[in-house]
This record gives sequence, structure tokens and C-alpha cells, in this order.
Amino acid sequence: MAGESKKWVLLVTAQTPTNIAVIKYWGKRDESLILPINDSISVTLDPAHLCTTTTVSVSPSFDQDRMWLNGKEISLSGGRFQRCLKEIRARASDVEDEKKGIKITKKDWENLHLHISSYNNFPTAAGLASSAAGFACLVFSLAKLMNVKEDLGQLSAIARQGSGSACRSLYGGFVKWIMGKNDDGSDSIAVQLADEKHWDELVIVIAVVSSRQKETSSTSGMRETVETSMLIKHRAKEVVPKRIVEMEEAIKNRDFPSFAHLACADSNQFHAVCMDTSPPIFYMNDTSHRIIGCVEKWNRSEESPQVAYTFDAGPNAVMIARSRKVAALLLQRLLFHFPPNADTDLNSYVIGDKSILQDVGVKDMKDVEALPPPPEIKDNIPAQKYKGDVSYFICTRPGKGPVVLSDESQALLCPKTGMPK
Amino acid sequence: MAGESKKWVLLVTAQTPTNIAVIKYWGKRDESLILPINDSISVTLDPAHLCTTTTVSVSPSFDQDRMWLNGKEISLSGGRFQRCLKEIRARASDVEDEKKGIKITKKDWENLHLHISSYNNFPTAAGLASSAAGFACLVFSLAKLMNVKEDLGQLSAIARQGSGSACRSLYGGFVKWIMGKNDDGSDSIAVQLADEKHWDELVIVIAVVSSRQKETSSTSGMRETVETSMLIKHRAKEVVPKRIVEMEEAIKNRDFPSFAHLACADSNQFHAVCMDTSPPIFYMNDTSHRIIGCVEKWNRSEESPQVAYTFDAGPNAVMIARSRKVAALLLQRLLFHFPPNADTDLNSYVIGDKSILQDVGVKDMKDVEALPPPPEIKDNIPAQKYKGDVSYFICTRPGKGPVVLSDESQALLCPKTGMPK
Repeated sequence: MAGESKKWVLLVTAQTPTNIAVIKYWGKRDESLILPINDSISVTLDPAHLCTTTTVSVSPSFDQDRMWLNGKEISLSGGRFQRCLKEIRARASDVEDEKKGIKITKKDWENLHLHISSYNNFPTAAGLASSAAGFACLVFSLAKLMNVKEDLGQLSAIARQGSGSACRSLYGGFVKWIMGKNDDGSDSIAVQLADEKHWDELVIVIAVVSSRQKETSSTSGMRETVETSMLIKHRAKEVVPKRIVEMEEAIKNRDFPSFAHLACADSNQFHAVCMDTSPPIFYMNDTSHRIIGCVEKWNRSEESPQVAYTFDAGPNAVMIARSRKVAALLLQRLLFHFPPNADTDLNSYVIGDKSILQDVGVKDMKDVEALPPPPEIKDNIPAQKYKGDVSYFICTRPGKGPVVLSDESQALLCPKTGMPK
Repeated sequence: MAGESKKWVLLVTAQTPTNIAVIKYWGKRDESLILPINDSISVTLDPAHLCTTTTVSVSPSFDQDRMWLNGKEISLSGGRFQRCLKEIRARASDVEDEKKGIKITKKDWENLHLHISSYNNFPTAAGLASSAAGFACLVFSLAKLMNVKEDLGQLSAIARQGSGSACRSLYGGFVKWIMGKNDDGSDSIAVQLADEKHWDELVIVIAVVSSRQKETSSTSGMRETVETSMLIKHRAKEVVPKRIVEMEEAIKNRDFPSFAHLACADSNQFHAVCMDTSPPIFYMNDTSHRIIGCVEKWNRSEESPQVAYTFDAGPNAVMIARSRKVAALLLQRLLFHFPPNADTDLNSYVIGDKSILQDVGVKDMKDVEALPPPPEIKDNIPAQKYKGDVSYFICTRPGKGPVVLSDESQALLCPKTGMPK
């Protein structure tokens, strides 16, 4: 290894999006390889609003693998981290950086240690698939650092072993995770169905819902569902395969009514099998139910669906509006029913693409209070308001896949010491 | 018709229990005959705490059929009332009351009108199966008045046409509604599995849960589930038949662990298929979920289940405790987590069999406030309280079937005028 005497540090920084499934993954057929019992389809969310940034670095001066998440050191001893590191190291190639005078051979990687720093531009605990973006970014950035020659599909099979849904974060736009048939999981990979430009009218509004309950982790939740639900097998074998075909068709044709119908029905069925688990798992709460009620009522009052909704393993609602205009009308309804607590700044209550707020014509809290009830609410039923039940809204859209950030100023580790900045 | 000149009034008063399904009925194969897509099993609740009392009367002075519910006149024009009246009238026999000098022939019933007055000893709108007890009582009392010779099974097939679950209220104890195969519904009847003395240790605690939402009626709810759920057919054809066999066995052997496991799993699956409906139906709310969480945590902390829970088409929890001792411990936990609002009298917060309260050692609100957290709650998690989320509790037990009240002072109609007292 050339340059060994010098205390050089080589680093790569990458950014990877999170994703939201519209045909859900729930249930593994292999716990350690993370192989699912059905295909799933997701929409990649714009990394401008929801992403993980990870810097990975290597140096002969490092004496062990270390990782920091949002500035705090965390353990890498977990099986999922170890598996990803091992799989990527096994595929490392020669790396040469002539400018820095560094040469690392394939063999050297076995003895070199890594420093990894990862940062989410959204609250980690909010239940917004941070592990999907996180493991995708870890695998993607390590693959770049180690000059791994495998394509994105093969990388997705590695990211999958960190967190199942991470495999879908290796592409932008619309992504399918093929469950695969092989025992070793080699064919359980993600493929892109269409990129983010294919259907760029869509706007996504996420309601981060306040919750007092501790939620069941998705890992143990799906294990319990597979072990105890009498409905999950029927879902995986009979229902999902048809929906996958129909969803691919809906995405291809930008057929919003079919897309919305399938996404909503599949989200509800995922929560149904959670409830059919023993003991039952409840991820949605009254606020989630009220958001669904609001969207369903509006969709029914229109000629065709305007908004699709989907919920992962938590109470947050992810709503997909068919157009920017519809998204503004949606946000208007949401702000009417779910205004923030009295002392909340509107600027921190609606984050992400704030231009949607301008379309609504809402500039401050006074404007929120003056919003009229949606026309689909009947006059004889007083419109109900649930102040404080939503923590905040994120406005975003379908977005691109992972990218390398070549500007070293964006690195999360110091290029000289390899320690967090 | 003898005695026609005299303005005589003949009346019968009966009392009929409500029931709670432990293997659920959800979905019809025939909407007008009310034929279900699967068998169901219920426990009859003690009429001392939850029942309908109905007085039916006949007189040549009545010029039309009329009905009063809880003192207020209601229309009898609905198809379900009409069908029950027609079916019972078709089976009427000769009636003779020598003391009153009344003789009615089979033929006379076609031209005689009825007055009916019905009263629930519990709030009608609380979602406590008032229509089951109501239609059962209507059919039972009319059958007595008209000297109908059919057995209870045949009467259950008539009550079924008023409200499906009404057929199960014609017996005490444990009752099975056999779905039947015939197109005319003649074999879709209820049968008694065991009477209320068979398993008399059981104690039932009902939490009437406060709700701000308007609920989907079970009639339209089950229609929408049958039309749109991809899971309901699998439930009806593959899951329920096995559970019916297992539940009959559990009841026969007084096997509480199996009984509890089946009842809870089937309640949760019923709510799962409601959620799998498009648009989804949510009957349980956050309070329902918290009650389930509390019972599940306690059951897990014990060696075997202490309490079963089941929820009908609403947020109210029906909990079945394996013994009186367990019921006291359950009520203690419920009062700890769900204390009443400040100005509530304990006497109106726990109704029905109040002796359970004495077992708990709780005499007033001060005692409720002093209740210690249940031992299964870990010290590191502060015990949560949800004041005001439960409206009240009803303590009861499995109970007997319909009875005739021969004491005329208990009649709801005046024996002279046939008008409400």
C-alpha cells in the first residue's frame, strides 16, 4: 500500500433519498438475509427535503471501524451493519488517488478501518424511514470509496441486508423490490420502474403525527404478523401479486385514479394484517384515521381521486396529490382541520417545499385561522378541528436517487483527521 | 271473534337479553333475508344489567300497528319490522283467555292490529347491541301473544330477519348462529351450545368508550366489506370454520386460555377486515387500543390469559374475566388508567353488578385516585392515565335467555287502553 507512511485520509460523501412504499413490504421469508414474502413498490422522495448524507473514509491511521449518526457515535457491532460492511469489503477493488499519492489494492481493504458519519436532514425518530435512506447511503458511499464494480441492482441486494426497504432507496422515481426466489437472496433486488421525471406533476405532503405511544419496531412487528396472522399468507400470495402488476401499469400510464386506489387499499391492508396479529399491532391512531376520513370524503366528493394516502409502521400520513394545484387544496384542508398549537410559527409547521403554502395564500397563523371549511363538509355537521394533533407538515415530491457530493466542504468528516467535523 | 264488542286488550310482556359475539358475524350472503357468510358464536349477557323489555298487545280497538321505543313513538314501516310482523302473523294460532272472555282464531290475527312498547335498560345509542335484544324481544313476545307453536330455533330464524345477531338473543349462555345453506334461510338459525350455568365463574366488564366520531352502521359497513375487502372471503371460508370448532370445544371444556385467545384474535380479525374495506372502516379508537394494550400486557405478565376482550362495531370494549377475583383486578386496572372526569360520581361510573367494586375495595373517588399502578407496568415507564376517555363501566356476567314477565304491573302498555303507561 503506497503512501502508508503518510497519515492520509481518503473520503467519499454521498446523499441518498428515503422512500415510501405504495405497495407494502411486510413479512420476511428469511430473517437474516432480509428476504420478503412479496414484491413491493415505492416512490423515492426528493432528497432536497428528506435524505441521508453519509461520509465514509479510510486511513491507515484508523485502528477500528467507527460510526457517528447525527454527530453521536453509535455501535457498529450489530449484525446488519456487519453484514453490509462484510459484503461491500468482499467486493472492493484497487483504488488509486494520484493527487494524494494513495494506492490501495483489493487485498489492503481487509486490513484497513473505516470512519463513517451519517446525517439525516429530518428528525430520526419521526418514523420517516430513516433506516432505509441510512443503509442505502452507507452501501452506496462505501461502494464508491472502495471502487466496487457491481451495478445498482447488486448494491441494492447488499443494502437490503441492512434494512429491507433500503434497497428501494438506490434509485429515484418509482422502484420495485423484486422478492426473488433464490435462497441466498441474490435475486432479491430493486429495479427502477420509472425515473422521477416520468410523472413529475405529483406532489407529496407528509403529516408528522404527534404520538404518545411507543411503537412496535417493524422488524419485530412483521415477524409477529408472519407467525400469528391468519390473513398475511393470503395477502402475500393472492392479493399483492395482482396489485404489483396493476400498480406498475398505473405508474406506466400515469393513471392517478388507479394509483390512488391501489396505494390506499394496500396501505389499509397492511394495517389490517397488523391488527390481525396476536397481540394486535396498531400503528395508526385517531389522527391518522381522521386524515384518512378527510381525504376519503374529499375524494368521494370529486369525480375521481385527487389524493392518495399511505402509512408506514407509524401514525404519519404520506399523501400524494395528483398535481400542484390539488396539493395546495389538500394543504388548505389539512391546515383547517389540524391547525398548530397557539405558539407555533407557521414557518416551522410547514417545511420542505414552502412554495405550496404560497399557492394556498397562507402567509401566517392569522391566515390559517381564517381558512374556510372545505366545501365537501355538509353544513349540518360542524367542521371539527384537532389543534396540535399534527406536529408539522413536510411538502415534497418524487425525487432522484443517490448522488456523490464531490465538493469536499460537504463532507461530514474532516479530510485531514477523518474525525467528525 | 268472541268479546269483540268489549274493548278488550290482550297483552304479553317479555324480557330478552343482549349478546356479544366471541366469533364474529360480519358479512351477508343475502341482504334481505339476513343470511351470513359464516357461523358465529356469542355469549348472552345477564338481562339484569342489559336487556330489552317489550310489551305487545292486541285489541279490536287498535286501528293500526304502532310502536314506542323508550317511550317515543317510532315508525314500523321499515322492511325489517314488516318482515318480522308478517312472519309471526303467518304462524299465529287460536288464542283463548277465558278469564277475560277473549277468543281469537288463527284467521282473526290477519285483521287485528298491534301496539308494541319496548324499553332498553341501557343507553340505546351506546353501541351495545340494542337491536339484537330488541328484535329478539319483539319476536319472542309476539310469538307468546299469538300462541305461535314454533320452537326457539324457528323463532330465531324470524328474529334474524330483523337484525342478524338478534337470533342469538333467544337463548341464554353460549349460542351458535349456524349460517345454514338453504336459499330461503330456513336453516340459518341459532342453537344453544351451553346454558349460563355451564360456566358461571365468568364475569364481564364493559367499558363504554366516549367517541366524537359518527360510526358506520354495521349494515352498510358489512356490505362494503363484502364488496371491497380482498381478505373477507378468506376469513369466512378458511379461518372462521376452524375457529368455530375450536371455540365450541373451548366452551365445552371451560378452557379459558383457548376461549380468550380465540375471542381476542377473532375480534381483531373482524376489525382488520373492516380496515381492509374501501374506504376503510375504523370502529376502534385510541381508547379501544389502549384498553387492548392494558389487557394484553397483563395477560402476558401472567402465566395464562386472565381476560378476553372483544369489540363490536364501535369503540366499546367487552372484557370477559376468567373469575370474579380476576374481574376485581381488571376493574382496578381500568379505574387506574381510565379514571372518570372530576365531577363524576363513582356510583354512576361503575354500574351493573356493583359488588365487584366492593371486592376492589373502592368506595369513592378518593379510593380511585389512590389506586396503585398495576405491577406489570415497568418502573421506568411512567404509568399513563386517560381521564374521561371512558364514559362508564358496566359489570355483568353471562345470563339467561328470554322470559315472559307475567306480573302485569311490569307491562309497558296500559292493560285497559293498550297505550304507553
